[in-house]
Amino acid sequence: MKEMPKFAVVLSGCGRADGSEIHEAVTALLAIDKHGCTYECFAPDMEQSAVINHLTSEKTEERRNVLAESARIARGDIKPLSELRVEDYDCLLFPGGLGAVTNWCDFAKNGINCNVESSVSRVLEEAYRQKKVIGAMCIAPVTIARVLGKYGITITIGKDKTVAEAIEKTGAKHQNTKVEDACVDEEHRIVTTPAYMLAKSIKEVAKGAESMVEAMITLAR
Amino acid sequence: MKEMPKFAVVLSGCGRADGSEIHEAVTALLAIDKHGCTYECFAPDMEQSAVINHLTSEKTEERRNVLAESARIARGDIKPLSELRVEDYDCLLFPGGLGAVTNWCDFAKNGINCNVESSVSRVLEEAYRQKKVIGAMCIAPVTIARVLGKYGITITIGKDKTVAEAIEKTGAKHQNTKVEDACVDEEHRIVTTPAYMLAKSIKEVAKGAESMVEAMITLAR
Repeated sequence: MKEMPKFAVVLSGCGRADGSEIHEAVTALLAIDKHGCTYECFAPDMEQSAVINHLTSEKTEERRNVLAESARIARGDIKPLSELRVEDYDCLLFPGGLGAVTNWCDFAKNGINCNVESSVSRVLEEAYRQKKVIGAMCIAPVTIARVLGKYGITITIGKDKTVAEAIEKTGAKHQNTKVEDACVDEEHRIVTTPAYMLAKSIKEVAKGAESMVEAMITLAR
Repeated sequence: MKEMPKFAVVLSGCGRADGSEIHEAVTALLAIDKHGCTYECFAPDMEQSAVINHLTSEKTEERRNVLAESARIARGDIKPLSELRVEDYDCLLFPGGLGAVTNWCDFAKNGINCNVESSVSRVLEEAYRQKKVIGAMCIAPVTIARVLGKYGITITIGKDKTVAEAIEKTGAKHQNTKVEDACVDEEHRIVTTPAYMLAKSIKEVAKGAESMVEAMITLAR
């Protein structure tokens, strides 16, 4: 029994439109810390698939690195995802944001038969095989489904029919879930929460993050 | 009496080393929302004084805009600070991060006799004259002191002697304050909290943000 599970938090950049959704990432880190658990942050060391001006929502000509931008959320304390040793952690947590489906994988462009970045698919497969607890928020469960759907996992992205149908093509099951709750697949040790797929404000995201982190800790113990 | 004070949150970019400290900004927004209050975000529409790679802490050759980067924290829902009508709000809140002393003003380079960006000094002077409640976190109280120190305000940046001495040159008084607490100047209606000037982890920042927001709401009612 692990009283204080260790979390690895995997980021995809810094900002809802081209990276990790900031409120989701921060409320997840806060929930982990409030429960007396520790976390370390990781992100793939790769160029972002796009840089979006968050004021205008327009694509820019800039080039940014996923790891360096994720470091803004992690206050510089972050490592390349290729260095993540899954055996050193009890829980792996994946916040949402469009970076989940544009940097970790190319679902946003190519749909559910998308490619997944190799360090992301590697840690997901290892975490599943080592019976670690996997958590994901918002749109990030799509990436989980692309890699682990073949095992018949159950996840949520809220209640969006189109995305839910895409997810189910992987073999995963989708379960409609309220914003403040977490969808808990005890058998496969996967916990997901809708976050900004449904949330109307940041306190709803924080409630969902707390539900997710609590369920992850319970499973990890 | 205002049951639900309205907050304007002023940002300075997105990231501790060249903008708003993300955990501070997000925990402040969360505290406001948890109390049932509303917020709108603003930032100066100006080029950042520098762009820092948060992984290496090195200055880069990139150029970024304070408003566009702040929009990442605000999820795109943000306006230029020049459009802030102080009379429309009850509380103005300034999260920390080095952007407070490199974008809002140039304290980091030129010390306490620094220049302050014109829209920042304008809203601070107006807020003070209109008896609005002003809140600030971490290093941001330095900017408040530069503009409003002449009125003999009392603020905190934690317990850093060098910065406290610089602040007192403006006429402001510095009060050592614990990380979970807020320094409340009832007379001048200014509330400050040390945040990452002292915090060892995000839950301490969140506690200070809650103390600050609670005190601001009490003063505004």
